[in-house]
Amino acid sequence: MAFHVLNLPKEKALYFAQAIIEAKEKIHKCEVCQNLTDSKICPVCKNEARDRAVICVVESPRDILAFERTKEYKGLYHVLHGLISPMDGIGPEQLYIKELLKRISDGVSEVIMATNPTVEGEATAAYLARLLKPLGIKVTRLAYGIPVGGNLEYADEITLYRALEGRTEF
Amino acid sequence: MAFHVLNLPKEKALYFAQAIIEAKEKIHKCEVCQNLTDSKICPVCKNEARDRAVICVVESPRDILAFERTKEYKGLYHVLHGLISPMDGIGPEQLYIKELLKRISDGVSEVIMATNPTVEGEATAAYLARLLKPLGIKVTRLAYGIPVGGNLEYADEITLYRALEGRTEF
Repeated sequence: MAFHVLNLPKEKALYFAQAIIEAKEKIHKCEVCQNLTDSKICPVCKNEARDRAVICVVESPRDILAFERTKEYKGLYHVLHGLISPMDGIGPEQLYIKELLKRISDGVSEVIMATNPTVEGEATAAYLARLLKPLGIKVTRLAYGIPVGGNLEYADEITLYRALEGRTEF
Repeated sequence: MAFHVLNLPKEKALYFAQAIIEAKEKIHKCEVCQNLTDSKICPVCKNEARDRAVICVVESPRDILAFERTKEYKGLYHVLHGLISPMDGIGPEQLYIKELLKRISDGVSEVIMATNPTVEGEATAAYLARLLKPLGIKVTRLAYGIPVGGNLEYADEITLYRALEGRTEF
């Protein structure tokens, strides 16, 4: 990147520097879902066509981009901005969990735990499920299994076991 | 491999050559499941402890190794030795499907389609499901979803959609 910047014409370099400053100044967290946005409330939360009964809980704004690419998910999101990780000294109070609980009251019927399929992701999902289930909310988890277009031969044992365990009827 | 062979001492090279000849002479298909074996019937089919009510249908013997690594699957297997692929001129009659149908009579309650999550694998699984379901057999398919330990950000859209669609309740 350093060499790329040095090769830029001066006006482009200035424009680039300005863009970085603006990004830091204008981009902040959506008041509702904590996604990054340049307005008070992000476009997803603003969109009247989205299903307000379903909230998909993710670790970072990047995960929202991944789900939006599927073009199939119509609900809302909530960004935790991290995962519970005692090894790194990150506890539930450092994440945007209070903000999630505040959103639960109004007509939410399902919360999808879409944290990463890692130890921290699983622990965070389990922690949130324990908080949400007593509130009468349906809490679900993304399916584990073989990725589409993949090859069984290269699947690790645990994934293969989960794919076998989660098999569905034709 | 050529350079490795040329670097081998003469007796090791002869031993290696002998092993190749023996492999081609002794290894053949199991009479029951079509897995590769050096005896009439392979160790899995012979094993009295395996659950004879479940048959896992795979493309190649390599897939059996993958499932055996999970140490969780207790049923039997059936190797098709290929997948239906009209582009490559491979139709159902070139696969070991007759042999699978012959095994269905005796106490089999479930057939798991564990072909690869590719177009050919899906087509073959769907074809077999159409053959088996009228026989009153429960036909299941491996779960699609995110691999354990993976990262949502790098998951392709179709996999992510399938993981969302196949979500399970906590």
